[in-house]
Amino acid sequence: MALAYDGAIQRLIDAFSRLPGIGPKGAQRIAFYLLSASQEEAQQLVDAITEVKDKVRFCDICGNVCEISPCPVCADPRRDHSVICVVEEPKDVMSIERTREYRGLYHVLGGAINPMANVGPADLNIPKLLDRLKTDEVQEVILALDPNIEGEATCTYLSRLLSPLGIKVTRLASGLPVGSDLEYADEITLARALTGRRAA
Amino acid sequence: MALAYDGAIQRLIDAFSRLPGIGPKGAQRIAFYLLSASQEEAQQLVDAITEVKDKVRFCDICGNVCEISPCPVCADPRRDHSVICVVEEPKDVMSIERTREYRGLYHVLGGAINPMANVGPADLNIPKLLDRLKTDEVQEVILALDPNIEGEATCTYLSRLLSPLGIKVTRLASGLPVGSDLEYADEITLARALTGRRAA
Repeated sequence: MALAYDGAIQRLIDAFSRLPGIGPKGAQRIAFYLLSASQEEAQQLVDAITEVKDKVRFCDICGNVCEISPCPVCADPRRDHSVICVVEEPKDVMSIERTREYRGLYHVLGGAINPMANVGPADLNIPKLLDRLKTDEVQEVILALDPNIEGEATCTYLSRLLSPLGIKVTRLASGLPVGSDLEYADEITLARALTGRRAA
Repeated sequence: MALAYDGAIQRLIDAFSRLPGIGPKGAQRIAFYLLSASQEEAQQLVDAITEVKDKVRFCDICGNVCEISPCPVCADPRRDHSVICVVEEPKDVMSIERTREYRGLYHVLGGAINPMANVGPADLNIPKLLDRLKTDEVQEVILALDPNIEGEATCTYLSRLLSPLGIKVTRLASGLPVGSDLEYADEITLARALTGRRAA
């Protein structure tokens, strides 16, 4: 017996190992789980993967994932079409929707500027954002990018790009997370919270 | 927009969430990864799952996973057919093979006795082990079960079951892992290492 599994199992372990967040041990565990799972459960997983690759596309307007383009948000007349919230990834749209505080539209960039990973402004869904701003409908662009180096770089880039257009450009507040302890806050977060202090 | 993703994506996230070791966030990450992955890579994963469910079976002799029964180990005349190493799962076979120290056969139980999860001796691949011991060929059974409560219970059960058959029943040594620190060893492991001390 070789020191790798028989053909089919090893190929399944390899296929799962290539997915993000799954290491060789995790892939092995999943492979053996699927092996003893019912034919039906394995088929559900296969169908779900096939269905997503067949059906899911990106919205022609905002770049979010959807099954019919334009996506339900862009097509919804009850949403506020004067505000566009710019995010990095489709999952960020979901995070903001969960707050139930936002009724405007979105624009998904598909990433953030990251010179280390060779991602520049040209790799992001920025031209379509500029197209959307050509009409007079949009009053405000909210930059809701991740508060890390890549997000900050993208924020600065977009802010410089959009401010000459005469549109209000805002960004999410930085500060202490709700439920956290002042004692454990890092200096940069605390400094931001001080700078951004509001009337109590 | 609802607070869940569109149909197909949510179904894919749900399907991955059901796999062991993958939480909702991890499943979401994988779903979006597959969404932007090439059609080819997604197809490879689908094919690997389908292939395993189609081709992989359990060896009629030892219960290990294989594509042709009997498995390559059971069918190999160069292996020592007088020793059977009893393990819980197919992945344990691979762990022992990796040591390159063992040339005997295996027997895969398919789990360990665990009353909390309603797994009793009747749920394990024990009858086939007894069948294999009916010939005079087998001289020794090595119990290589996990050193936890379930493994110990299974070890004790099998040891009582097999000792009347006049076959040598042994178990893996307990003690300090190589490369570890005496200072950080738990009391039970240290006690086992003391009890099992050998001439230096």
